[in-house]
Amino acid sequence: MKIYADNAATTEMSKAALDTMVYYLTNVYGNPSSLYTIGQKAKEELENARYDIASVLNAEPREIIFTSGGSEADNQALLSAAEIGKKKGKTHIISTTFEHHAVLHSLKRLEKQGFEVTLLPMHENGIVRPEELEAAIREDTCLVTVMAANNEIGTIQPIAEIGRICRDHGVLFHTDAVQAVGHIPIDVKAMNIDLLSASAHKFHGPKGTGFLYARKGVALTNLIEGGAQERGKRAGTENLAGIMSMAAALKETSAAMEKNSEKMSAVRDYLIKGLSEIPHCALNGDAKMRLPGNVNFSFEGIEGESLLILLDQKGISASSGSACTSGALDPSHVLLAIGRIHDVAHGSLRLTIGENATVEEADYIIESVKEIVAHLRSFSPVWRDLTEGKREYILP
Amino acid sequence: MKIYADNAATTEMSKAALDTMVYYLTNVYGNPSSLYTIGQKAKEELENARYDIASVLNAEPREIIFTSGGSEADNQALLSAAEIGKKKGKTHIISTTFEHHAVLHSLKRLEKQGFEVTLLPMHENGIVRPEELEAAIREDTCLVTVMAANNEIGTIQPIAEIGRICRDHGVLFHTDAVQAVGHIPIDVKAMNIDLLSASAHKFHGPKGTGFLYARKGVALTNLIEGGAQERGKRAGTENLAGIMSMAAALKETSAAMEKNSEKMSAVRDYLIKGLSEIPHCALNGDAKMRLPGNVNFSFEGIEGESLLILLDQKGISASSGSACTSGALDPSHVLLAIGRIHDVAHGSLRLTIGENATVEEADYIIESVKEIVAHLRSFSPVWRDLTEGKREYILP
Repeated sequence: MKIYADNAATTEMSKAALDTMVYYLTNVYGNPSSLYTIGQKAKEELENARYDIASVLNAEPREIIFTSGGSEADNQALLSAAEIGKKKGKTHIISTTFEHHAVLHSLKRLEKQGFEVTLLPMHENGIVRPEELEAAIREDTCLVTVMAANNEIGTIQPIAEIGRICRDHGVLFHTDAVQAVGHIPIDVKAMNIDLLSASAHKFHGPKGTGFLYARKGVALTNLIEGGAQERGKRAGTENLAGIMSMAAALKETSAAMEKNSEKMSAVRDYLIKGLSEIPHCALNGDAKMRLPGNVNFSFEGIEGESLLILLDQKGISASSGSACTSGALDPSHVLLAIGRIHDVAHGSLRLTIGENATVEEADYIIESVKEIVAHLRSFSPVWRDLTEGKREYILP
Repeated sequence: MKIYADNAATTEMSKAALDTMVYYLTNVYGNPSSLYTIGQKAKEELENARYDIASVLNAEPREIIFTSGGSEADNQALLSAAEIGKKKGKTHIISTTFEHHAVLHSLKRLEKQGFEVTLLPMHENGIVRPEELEAAIREDTCLVTVMAANNEIGTIQPIAEIGRICRDHGVLFHTDAVQAVGHIPIDVKAMNIDLLSASAHKFHGPKGTGFLYARKGVALTNLIEGGAQERGKRAGTENLAGIMSMAAALKETSAAMEKNSEKMSAVRDYLIKGLSEIPHCALNGDAKMRLPGNVNFSFEGIEGESLLILLDQKGISASSGSACTSGALDPSHVLLAIGRIHDVAHGSLRLTIGENATVEEADYIIESVKEIVAHLRSFSPVWRDLTEGKREYILP
């Protein structure tokens, strides 16, 4: 059995997205910034995509800027909000310890430029507490940036509440919604979102394209300077085929969101129930407020990497956390943030299922993980200590 | 007759590039940063593309960083060189007045950050004089950035000489080679290039992908912070299909470069000869040191925009300059840089032919331009003044 259970890393392109991409790659190669017919045709299509994407989020077309992906959008959002803040003498930013590195590393850069950053500590359930966020807001706070849904543990944040608080305090609110857009409902107006980042390949669109929503009136600073594309806010010839494909993917996933969410949540909960039977494990993240496709467990006494390699041998593609940091030997900063100790965080597994996941596949995954965890523990000195009756986790 | 003569704005994808793109979009969707088989397969392919692209430029694979295009590469190159300079207390940069806006606007940003920029004035032939460049180098010069070939007038710069001078003086040398890569030979080692930007859609690859060459030892600064992709120097999930397609396109155009160049130059020179017969016109750029596909004329007494619209009606897609600034009412900064006065610069036409251009097409273009220029002049008050015997150009 071949099971792809790493949809938070990237998704397979949908047929609609692929067909759209191929159509535009083949038929519409005009530069959308050109005056002649085939350029104007490309421009028109580009604006249709902008309209479609805006509609899904209850935004206005002019509030959508196309980027090369979620990381670029995050970088531009933070740079822009920081510039706006600096002009008003406001140089304090609030975020959380479990953001994506595109946000955390951008914040590091801003710190070097004189900004002060408060990272809200995370609680075990992986959900931001709005009252703590509100308490952290100061006179000089220019920006709150909190992701809509976490990429590792899948927890869905109280975005609408955070948006309300930020608006009340006159602070800009950015949300990295890379894992959320196309998966859970997002309404930028109702949620009082000022800036939002999204990435096409997380909702069955192509890699290399994404967008930044910036509320009308929020002045963007260019990350990429040059030509006058995207109303002068993002230089570079527009990736028309990618953008059209992204719009097709988003329309499709959004239309099917409710139905898919219900189906996926059922398989997710079945997986959680089955994997919970493994001794000395812990579900990471909240049981209810999580993305419909996300399952994340820590298993004591094993190495996540070995687990992944053995799962791969059984045809299951999974991960231990973010693909963006895989290869790193450090345990996930998200799992450390929610209080997992170093060694437990190391023995983690993220399964992110797709819309077509079945209970049969879940059974195969549960059986495989059970078998592999038992096998790995059979030669783990840590685990032997534990099974000899010591219930406390023992550091090696 | 339908003629696409705006290949400097963007090119149609080659069959090889398109087939490669579709193959990877359809078959290899694994995230290259993942541990499991399909991710590792993607990673392997990505490294093959890096190897292929490096080979074309006589670079090493680790010297190639994939970006979303030429503008991003330009921005990152300049940011990086500036950071390197700043650390050594060197904050002077040399460039030219006719660079692409991705360079010029990045330089504006650096000026705001305290860098001093010397823009070499351009001469009528549109070619940088190495001795003038050398004379401009100071003790505190950290970077010289000169484009390899101009996007509007097609002039090819003495890159090897500039590289030699920069290396001798210990100054970093960046070249925006967006119009050059795949069209004229580039050897980063022989030409002493430290940083080079390129864009796939200018050589029959897809839009939304490009690369930055950075010589080993030249430390890059991230433009996009986040994940550890591209050895930590460019965050964001790798656009595998786009990158593979870019590599396929570059291999193909490079292999056919000599043959195509000869063919295209012949059609280009035929076009130049034919259009030169139009009274009161001037070829912009050097007659010999120009890209094989580039033709650029100024016609006195007409508006370039009207010319383009009427050419479009005859099935000819052309431009008045850079697509990146089209829509702007200002005349081309490149044409002003080479000394064309405002109104003459306004009446300009750029034709950039492709590899399959024919003499028959050139005949149709020449005939069409002649007819349209005559027509536009027939109701131009400026032109009537001119035809009444005043040879001087009269400002309206």
